[in-house]
Amino acid sequence: MKIAVVGETRPGERRVALVPGLVSRLADVVAEVAVESGAGAAAGFSDEDYRQAGATVAADALHGAGVVLSVQPIPEHRIGELAPGAITISFLPVAQELDLVRALRDGGHTALAMELVPRTSRAQAMDALSSQSFVAGYRAAVVAAEKLPRFLPLSMTASGTIRPATVLVLGAGVAGLQAIATSRRLGAVVRAYDVRAASAEEVRSLGAEFVELELPTLEGAGGYAREMTEERSRRQRELLAPHVADADVLITTAAVPGRTAPVLVTAEMVAAMRPGSVVVDLAAESGGNVEGAKPGEEVTVDGVLVWGGANVPSQVPGQASQLYSTNVVNLLLHLRSGDEIAPDFDDEIVAGCCVTHAGEVRHEPTRALLAAQVSSVD
Amino acid sequence: MKIAVVGETRPGERRVALVPGLVSRLADVVAEVAVESGAGAAAGFSDEDYRQAGATVAADALHGAGVVLSVQPIPEHRIGELAPGAITISFLPVAQELDLVRALRDGGHTALAMELVPRTSRAQAMDALSSQSFVAGYRAAVVAAEKLPRFLPLSMTASGTIRPATVLVLGAGVAGLQAIATSRRLGAVVRAYDVRAASAEEVRSLGAEFVELELPTLEGAGGYAREMTEERSRRQRELLAPHVADADVLITTAAVPGRTAPVLVTAEMVAAMRPGSVVVDLAAESGGNVEGAKPGEEVTVDGVLVWGGANVPSQVPGQASQLYSTNVVNLLLHLRSGDEIAPDFDDEIVAGCCVTHAGEVRHEPTRALLAAQVSSVD
Repeated sequence: MKIAVVGETRPGERRVALVPGLVSRLADVVAEVAVESGAGAAAGFSDEDYRQAGATVAADALHGAGVVLSVQPIPEHRIGELAPGAITISFLPVAQELDLVRALRDGGHTALAMELVPRTSRAQAMDALSSQSFVAGYRAAVVAAEKLPRFLPLSMTASGTIRPATVLVLGAGVAGLQAIATSRRLGAVVRAYDVRAASAEEVRSLGAEFVELELPTLEGAGGYAREMTEERSRRQRELLAPHVADADVLITTAAVPGRTAPVLVTAEMVAAMRPGSVVVDLAAESGGNVEGAKPGEEVTVDGVLVWGGANVPSQVPGQASQLYSTNVVNLLLHLRSGDEIAPDFDDEIVAGCCVTHAGEVRHEPTRALLAAQVSSVD
Repeated sequence: MKIAVVGETRPGERRVALVPGLVSRLADVVAEVAVESGAGAAAGFSDEDYRQAGATVAADALHGAGVVLSVQPIPEHRIGELAPGAITISFLPVAQELDLVRALRDGGHTALAMELVPRTSRAQAMDALSSQSFVAGYRAAVVAAEKLPRFLPLSMTASGTIRPATVLVLGAGVAGLQAIATSRRLGAVVRAYDVRAASAEEVRSLGAEFVELELPTLEGAGGYAREMTEERSRRQRELLAPHVADADVLITTAAVPGRTAPVLVTAEMVAAMRPGSVVVDLAAESGGNVEGAKPGEEVTVDGVLVWGGANVPSQVPGQASQLYSTNVVNLLLHLRSGDEIAPDFDDEIVAGCCVTHAGEVRHEPTRALLAAQVSSVD
């Protein structure tokens, strides 16, 4: 079997689905790894790097490939280039990509969506949402440190003492925890809040303070927070307001995949921060946790800099690619049966992330979305 | 006596010579602290902050003031506003400011230059060169972390291990040591080189490796390195080249006040770095340690980003101001005699930093520069 690595074409996407260093890990299961010319360039990997790793580099890498790897979904206009029954592995945000899902289904292709890999310990090494959130969380803290016109650490010098900066992190998932860890490394006083009470221990283990609000917790399935009522949201904002006002840096990371991000911080709360403070909203692309945050932009609101993230993992492209590639390779090796790649569709991981297969949409919520679309067209 | 705080007017200067928090420390020795309206704005201090601290805020703060504080030298066109015999305290790079020195001398003013405060333990708390270098060193490391398209720390995740980045720091004075400490905080592997062998122990105490080159050391006076022969420079560049090529981040901090910075790294050495590497040259304003570095600009040389520093302490304006203010206040309190500010010109610190007094240029090298200028005009 031949595996193809597709060059990314979406604006701002700098990652590549397979880094040269992992090509050899596929040697047992595939006859050829074919990479589109220039696919790794934006992530810092040359065609020559791929050749030295044992891959072939070609413009027609896709031709005859049984498995096609990419970070962003394969563009709809390229579906025709896929071999019959090819397996595509990529991120595939189904709600935004219904036309593409339909085309993959009608083409008889097997589409596996990395963000649908179950968040179980067994599948941890294939969890690309986590690995990319890890990158985004690091990046959020480094960007905040650079944008902040003051020191993060406590500094005691012959010329006096500088008090440490205060960083508030909202949402203590993978990205939040990495933002906490990085801010702590830099010596900031860090506080964090999450609707899931279980995260308190993790927050504290990183040397940060867990902000306790007098509110019921919202533990959800798969490690995600459940959505909350508007009344609870309002009350949460009220209780968070003084913590936000007191912070030099606010980093928000509360995103629920495929949904609009909850507004945790209003423009009024931002305005109550000290001038010169910095807000980093990692959820800006899905609507934003912070009112006024714009993806890919820096806006200044009442003297406070609000940085809206847009494809943040692509800002650390080489290593985000390395982690994503590891996830993809682990999934590929999970799909093997003897010397072949032959997914077992009854397997929990395969069943979880399979969107289309053999002319059908296998992912129940996607099927419902497609049906709703058809009936609304009627 | 009245002390005036002047608003800074040089492009890019965001610091202020006295922060509100230190106004009260002068209460015993001065009758009034008068601040020009808006003087602290760029550093984050409002007129109201100064009023609450007990200062007066006025457009004519300079009028009748016995001591005038600023960060940059007072502009020549404002000399006429100074009261007879006023003492000015500021940075005063004499070699670049000969016209101003002449005007201060002819006006009968006492000009004290913060960069000429002797680097002795007694004067440590007045050492503004050190305090501002401390800020610049922190900033250099944070900027490098933000510009680098990869992680600094070692990261071990379910999706694999990321190796730490390598940071090379050239010049292990105050700025260099702070750049080392901050890069270490962020988890990088740090190496450092300085021509002064004595710095090896300090470098190692921060968890960094001291790069040993087979060259004689160059210990100079006042904690600075001596200048070296062109032959030694060439050999040093040769020996440094592999270390530079191996680094993800290069931070250079080798500046000798009032002199052109030594070129430690040629364009060829930069080109040998991996694409995506980052160079931060803190000496860019005085000619640059790195060939091609431009103050206040980011240039890309063969895929390597070269960031040239320009008034780097002003990028952390509030706290750079706080440290500078502490230095200035400590110097002022050193100048007191009983309840008055009355400098003792025989005192080692005063004698060291006094440029002009009572119609004379007291600083010997400046006098020589002025004499040379006069004779070259002849």
